[in-house]
Amino acid sequence: MIPRYSRPEMTRIWDPENRFRIWFEIEAHACDAQAKLGVIPADAAKAVWERGAWEIDRIDEIERETKHDVIAFLTNLAEHVGPEARFVHQGMTSSDVLDTCLAVQMTQAADLLLADLDKLLDALKRRALEHKYTATIGRSHGIHAEPTTFGVKLAGHYAAFARNKTRLLAARAEIATCAISGAVGTFANIDPFVEEYVAEKLGLTVEPHSTQVIPRDRHAMFFATLGVIAASLDNLATEVRHLQRSEVREAEEYFSPGQKGSSAMPHKRNPVLSENLSGLSRIVRGYVTPALENVTLWHERDISHSSVERMIGPDATVTLDFALVRATGLIEKLVVYPENLQKNLDMLGGLHNSQRMLLALTQAGMSREDAYRAVQRNAMPVWLEGKDFRTMLKSDADVMKHLTEAAIDDAFDLGYHTKHVDTIFRRVFGE
Amino acid sequence: MIPRYSRPEMTRIWDPENRFRIWFEIEAHACDAQAKLGVIPADAAKAVWERGAWEIDRIDEIERETKHDVIAFLTNLAEHVGPEARFVHQGMTSSDVLDTCLAVQMTQAADLLLADLDKLLDALKRRALEHKYTATIGRSHGIHAEPTTFGVKLAGHYAAFARNKTRLLAARAEIATCAISGAVGTFANIDPFVEEYVAEKLGLTVEPHSTQVIPRDRHAMFFATLGVIAASLDNLATEVRHLQRSEVREAEEYFSPGQKGSSAMPHKRNPVLSENLSGLSRIVRGYVTPALENVTLWHERDISHSSVERMIGPDATVTLDFALVRATGLIEKLVVYPENLQKNLDMLGGLHNSQRMLLALTQAGMSREDAYRAVQRNAMPVWLEGKDFRTMLKSDADVMKHLTEAAIDDAFDLGYHTKHVDTIFRRVFGE
Amino acid sequence: MIPRYSRPEMTRIWDPENRFRIWFEIEAHACDAQAKLGVIPADAAKAVWERGAWEIDRIDEIERETKHDVIAFLTNLAEHVGPEARFVHQGMTSSDVLDTCLAVQMTQAADLLLADLDKLLDALKRRALEHKYTATIGRSHGIHAEPTTFGVKLAGHYAAFARNKTRLLAARAEIATCAISGAVGTFANIDPFVEEYVAEKLGLTVEPHSTQVIPRDRHAMFFATLGVIAASLDNLATEVRHLQRSEVREAEEYFSPGQKGSSAMPHKRNPVLSENLSGLSRIVRGYVTPALENVTLWHERDISHSSVERMIGPDATVTLDFALVRATGLIEKLVVYPENLQKNLDMLGGLHNSQRMLLALTQAGMSREDAYRAVQRNAMPVWLEGKDFRTMLKSDADVMKHLTEAAIDDAFDLGYHTKHVDTIFRRVFGE
Amino acid sequence: MIPRYSRPEMTRIWDPENRFRIWFEIEAHACDAQAKLGVIPADAAKAVWERGAWEIDRIDEIERETKHDVIAFLTNLAEHVGPEARFVHQGMTSSDVLDTCLAVQMTQAADLLLADLDKLLDALKRRALEHKYTATIGRSHGIHAEPTTFGVKLAGHYAAFARNKTRLLAARAEIATCAISGAVGTFANIDPFVEEYVAEKLGLTVEPHSTQVIPRDRHAMFFATLGVIAASLDNLATEVRHLQRSEVREAEEYFSPGQKGSSAMPHKRNPVLSENLSGLSRIVRGYVTPALENVTLWHERDISHSSVERMIGPDATVTLDFALVRATGLIEKLVVYPENLQKNLDMLGGLHNSQRMLLALTQAGMSREDAYRAVQRNAMPVWLEGKDFRTMLKSDADVMKHLTEAAIDDAFDLGYHTKHVDTIFRRVFGE
Repeated sequence: MIPRYSRPEMTRIWDPENRFRIWFEIEAHACDAQAKLGVIPADAAKAVWERGAWEIDRIDEIERETKHDVIAFLTNLAEHVGPEARFVHQGMTSSDVLDTCLAVQMTQAADLLLADLDKLLDALKRRALEHKYTATIGRSHGIHAEPTTFGVKLAGHYAAFARNKTRLLAARAEIATCAISGAVGTFANIDPFVEEYVAEKLGLTVEPHSTQVIPRDRHAMFFATLGVIAASLDNLATEVRHLQRSEVREAEEYFSPGQKGSSAMPHKRNPVLSENLSGLSRIVRGYVTPALENVTLWHERDISHSSVERMIGPDATVTLDFALVRATGLIEKLVVYPENLQKNLDMLGGLHNSQRMLLALTQAGMSREDAYRAVQRNAMPVWLEGKDFRTMLKSDADVMKHLTEAAIDDAFDLGYHTKHVDTIFRRVFGE
Repeated sequence: MIPRYSRPEMTRIWDPENRFRIWFEIEAHACDAQAKLGVIPADAAKAVWERGAWEIDRIDEIERETKHDVIAFLTNLAEHVGPEARFVHQGMTSSDVLDTCLAVQMTQAADLLLADLDKLLDALKRRALEHKYTATIGRSHGIHAEPTTFGVKLAGHYAAFARNKTRLLAARAEIATCAISGAVGTFANIDPFVEEYVAEKLGLTVEPHSTQVIPRDRHAMFFATLGVIAASLDNLATEVRHLQRSEVREAEEYFSPGQKGSSAMPHKRNPVLSENLSGLSRIVRGYVTPALENVTLWHERDISHSSVERMIGPDATVTLDFALVRATGLIEKLVVYPENLQKNLDMLGGLHNSQRMLLALTQAGMSREDAYRAVQRNAMPVWLEGKDFRTMLKSDADVMKHLTEAAIDDAFDLGYHTKHVDTIFRRVFGE
Repeated sequence: MIPRYSRPEMTRIWDPENRFRIWFEIEAHACDAQAKLGVIPADAAKAVWERGAWEIDRIDEIERETKHDVIAFLTNLAEHVGPEARFVHQGMTSSDVLDTCLAVQMTQAADLLLADLDKLLDALKRRALEHKYTATIGRSHGIHAEPTTFGVKLAGHYAAFARNKTRLLAARAEIATCAISGAVGTFANIDPFVEEYVAEKLGLTVEPHSTQVIPRDRHAMFFATLGVIAASLDNLATEVRHLQRSEVREAEEYFSPGQKGSSAMPHKRNPVLSENLSGLSRIVRGYVTPALENVTLWHERDISHSSVERMIGPDATVTLDFALVRATGLIEKLVVYPENLQKNLDMLGGLHNSQRMLLALTQAGMSREDAYRAVQRNAMPVWLEGKDFRTMLKSDADVMKHLTEAAIDDAFDLGYHTKHVDTIFRRVFGE
Repeated sequence: MIPRYSRPEMTRIWDPENRFRIWFEIEAHACDAQAKLGVIPADAAKAVWERGAWEIDRIDEIERETKHDVIAFLTNLAEHVGPEARFVHQGMTSSDVLDTCLAVQMTQAADLLLADLDKLLDALKRRALEHKYTATIGRSHGIHAEPTTFGVKLAGHYAAFARNKTRLLAARAEIATCAISGAVGTFANIDPFVEEYVAEKLGLTVEPHSTQVIPRDRHAMFFATLGVIAASLDNLATEVRHLQRSEVREAEEYFSPGQKGSSAMPHKRNPVLSENLSGLSRIVRGYVTPALENVTLWHERDISHSSVERMIGPDATVTLDFALVRATGLIEKLVVYPENLQKNLDMLGGLHNSQRMLLALTQAGMSREDAYRAVQRNAMPVWLEGKDFRTMLKSDADVMKHLTEAAIDDAFDLGYHTKHVDTIFRRVFGE
């Protein structure tokens, strides 16, 4: 996480301000619960809400001395709350605060990422509909195969990110749990009601089984999910990078008129946003392994996971947020060149219809072997000498024995390839 | 995947026999669908089912020549079906068969893994209930903290694997899709009905958008999920490895009476099964990264993912299956030593109750600071000279001003720590 | 590791035959050393060499009973050696045999990989020299930049693999150590001389510090190095995949005349070997993480690393060996299309010389700003209307004030870009 | 990289100050070289050195406009240098500056890490010598095996970090290269002499083959090496974590007298530094995968690697630096408890000598089978009833037929296990 690849909307979640605010709410709600249980006076809980305040500088100052962040916060809080402060944090451990706070931060981050995904989905859908029937050559192995449409391409990415949204919703639910269960998770010093109460107030569910800490398979699943989303981004970015290659140039990242740089080399418009997305994807995927390694803690808990999370928590969410927003802008403004799409589609003199011709001939009664030979002998001059495939076929006596010119034209009709685009769109966009 | 860490139940899924059987079913069901559409004669479809057969040796022989596995299979199939074979595979691409087959194999593998999880869950639950109230010291950072129970420990692992089951069900749904959509996924040469028909027959859902291949974010999510399950296994295995340490010896892997090896060193019972599980977990987690890298394919598809999947498909599922079964046996037969659990619990002369005492004193009206000092001055001789904490406290005048002997005994009551075990069990086991 | 991506030269190293042969040599050499020390009779050592034999089936049979592979081997060996067998393995532990054997296998694997690298280097060098001055457009970001040569391209990959060879030599040295040091590495029951003797006989160095096992940072470094080599393969493969794209087609994987498949679509020559290399690279890179995780063993050793190595030892070396050989064939037979290289080079009407022109104009005294404007106004019609850049420049009065026609022609001379190719080749090939 | 786990010595390397300083030096040295070649006036080069200056704020301001960091820097530099500034950067590309600067930063980082390693090696050596003969039980699988010494343990870690130093020196050499070769690495616009000159001035070697960028297999090897070093740190930290467990307590992290926290629970000294090291190790290892993925760039270069390096460059080096320094402090101050080492060594009533006894009996002429039985029948009561092994043996008639009491005592002599410690130390410390 570096400023260059960060948005304040996400970094804010990981800022001390937000963290301390959440800590305060956990403590204050816990006081309410304890007051309801009669463990502490109701006035004390009220005082916490009313007089509760803190200053980051002061907390830092105390922490330098105590080397303990939660104690530093509580000490500073007590300076504001006064004597009633002794009822704060009663029966709780630092981890109750820290792990529940992390859960809140991760759900906030997930919500922002979900909003990002919605915007990316919107952009992909809009552009897919715009180019629903914009013909393009489909490529397998980087080699021209059969026609498809630019809209179908984008619909595929839409479908992937729709899946990613479902995954992120599941991942959000995984980590949205509250644990206030004490030193080893037995509620020895605090009633489970406090946990239930705080969970509800914070929009979390109760962690059914914690051991001072919330189990880390939840976090692993969360980061693994971010890794999969990042992988989809790389896939999308790679498509754009390919489309923008000098020899292909079917689409280009938007380049603002005033944008300095290579106007002496007007062709030098580099797909730097997409390349950047590929790099950011690597970064986010790289956090999956440490998160998986964090699952194994010793007995009820060790603290080895903590340093990892202090880094990958912000790093993974901030980087993915930035990447999703960048991807959205990329798609929204992507410049598509239909004439180049068509030019490339025509590049091989119609050879991409060879399979279609093979089928037409066999359907017209020719044996598979004969049809194959017929297609092959007409395809070769197209490939080697740049002839036109359709013309070649129409001048082949054997072919013409089985097919009319209209039938051949029909086989070259692009509509043949786009007739089910509507089905695909209905499946993907559900309408 | 090596025989040493494989079970035939899982390797069978990846055997040629199963693969060709699935290929056949895809082709034969597709013929039925095509017949229903009137694209091929109904008799042809019938002939495929009736006379369809193949021999692995013969397929291998043809493949050595054609270097194409699907063509080799179809050729061999045609040798059995006869002239009607020309209606087989019509309008389809090899990937239609290969990707749908992979989907079937992965769902079969997922089903076996789900059954494995059920058995592991059963074992964990049974042992958790057995030791619901078997006291043990809870440890944070490897250091004695507060008491918990052995059953609560196991309940935590149960909860993790219950989550893993939910995750695997979701991952199974992710990869259980059927694609029969042609060279670039446009259904140019085959009606979407065929895909729908075959999907239903094979228990799959229709892939809403394929591009010759099923999108690989699905597979990435599947392997990432296996990685998380493997991580939980490592966590469980590490707990056992710790419990079996010479100095701890609270539990041991079962060691059969006749088991050769170290009977001259009877203490030399090594937690080799658990250590093995830690290793196998690393392997399964290691497959997550290649699966994430597989998501980015060029344009409509390239085939770089294929070699990866040919290896990690079997490797990840076979290894995880073996590990889950091994873990189940480990837990089922785990030898627990309650007397050692108690001995370790008592090891620190009752010091694990120091926090409890602190609370009791403050609740009895002592200021936090005074209580802290009182606990500290009685704790130190326990730690340094091996004194008994309770005895020390009872002979401390200040303490006795605030608490009765009975109150102190009460603070040392294990029931204090186990009073919410039932709540935890209810949350985890739902009963 | 699957047969499809394996060569017998490498799988043989990991076969039981080779393993048992190495075990035997370790034991027999150790007997010689013990005899020299007077610990065992010289006749016993002689008997081991003379009568030493084993049968894999018999070892398997015994192992099924004892569940211990080294004991099974020694038992079978004793059946051949007779009474003197009791002097075999004296003072040794299983790990002395297993870890030293792994070291031998890994050095054998490294030697094969080094030979593979030599062949790949030969192929790259030969083709680089062949195309030393075959002009091609250099591309940054997939966009045409300035000319370079096809030979320079290949020279870059040669340089990378030359570095990889150096790295592999270092990695080989890392893992070529012998440990015969007993249960915790203290030589309590065996003299260090035995280790020194066996090491020398097997071409290994002595492990300075073992703890029953050879430290696993050595193996981690080895697998990390294989990962880097695999990464270079991916880079090379990706270059070929790009060159073979339909729109680029500057080079193609060799396609044998009789090769079945897509002769009806003659353009459908897919870079499947290169794509396969990209996939195999992912697999080999994926083994780096488990190898890194293997470094942390508990105290003097645990056995968690073993299952990982049983899998990634063969998997990583077999897969990389296969990939290197495949890459060598790919480069050796790569079909280069100079006319397409030239066509693509000319594609942008000479615009790739715009920077060169900018420099020429400023060197001729024009201010940087004026030069920029001059180049820009002549570049734009080339880009937008397909004009020829050189023609445009020559008809620009401002430009002609500063440059002669000859000077412009000179700026368009390819030799300008290739004048230092010789320097680069000398640096890379050292001649 | 977060402040909590950062040292200014390393963060400084990645600060804008240092970066711009290096950029300036590259440009100024390049001017000198160009002046020597007669390409630019000598006065211009002199002016750059004399008047060269820059302000970070001003560069930021210009960059916000131009969106190009190198141009922003050059513009600001020109504001100071004046008219001669037009000779700066002539014939160079931004990457010439950026990649060479990264090389300088990485070598600076490597140098700091090498110094860190030296300090860690010093600490390990000092403590190893201190405890050269401090007896401790060696453990395999976490189970007591045979005695070793605390010094031997530490010597093993010393050996690992000595290897790591060698590796890092090699990795440093890998990335210490200078590239000033132009847009595609052909030196079209700049003489190779400039590169050679700047390389020498900056203490780098010449990159033999660059393609606008320095090849990324170099960086991958660098980060992989950091990953291996981090893995060794995890191994060391895990040893300490084990030693500090409540049940083991053979060593403890230093806990300053005034250190707040758990003085009411004096046993609650958590190995938090070591646990932190385990976590930091995961982080550094996690950067290996993105670095490996960075090797594959498209054609002469794409910029996908850049975002990855902007993050993992600082993150990996800063985190590893912090971890190495923390590890050094940990080892320097590690509190070792010899009495606990001895207590644990004696824990099993001498059973760790069972193998030694087995050997003594067979050497005294007993058959292996009989010796085994004799050891076993005396070991069992030790294990099950807490008897003393030596006493048991001395009262076994069969045993006493073969061995004198002195011989048995001899077999229980610790010196038996430590007799080669000197050899090991000589191998490891070379003296």
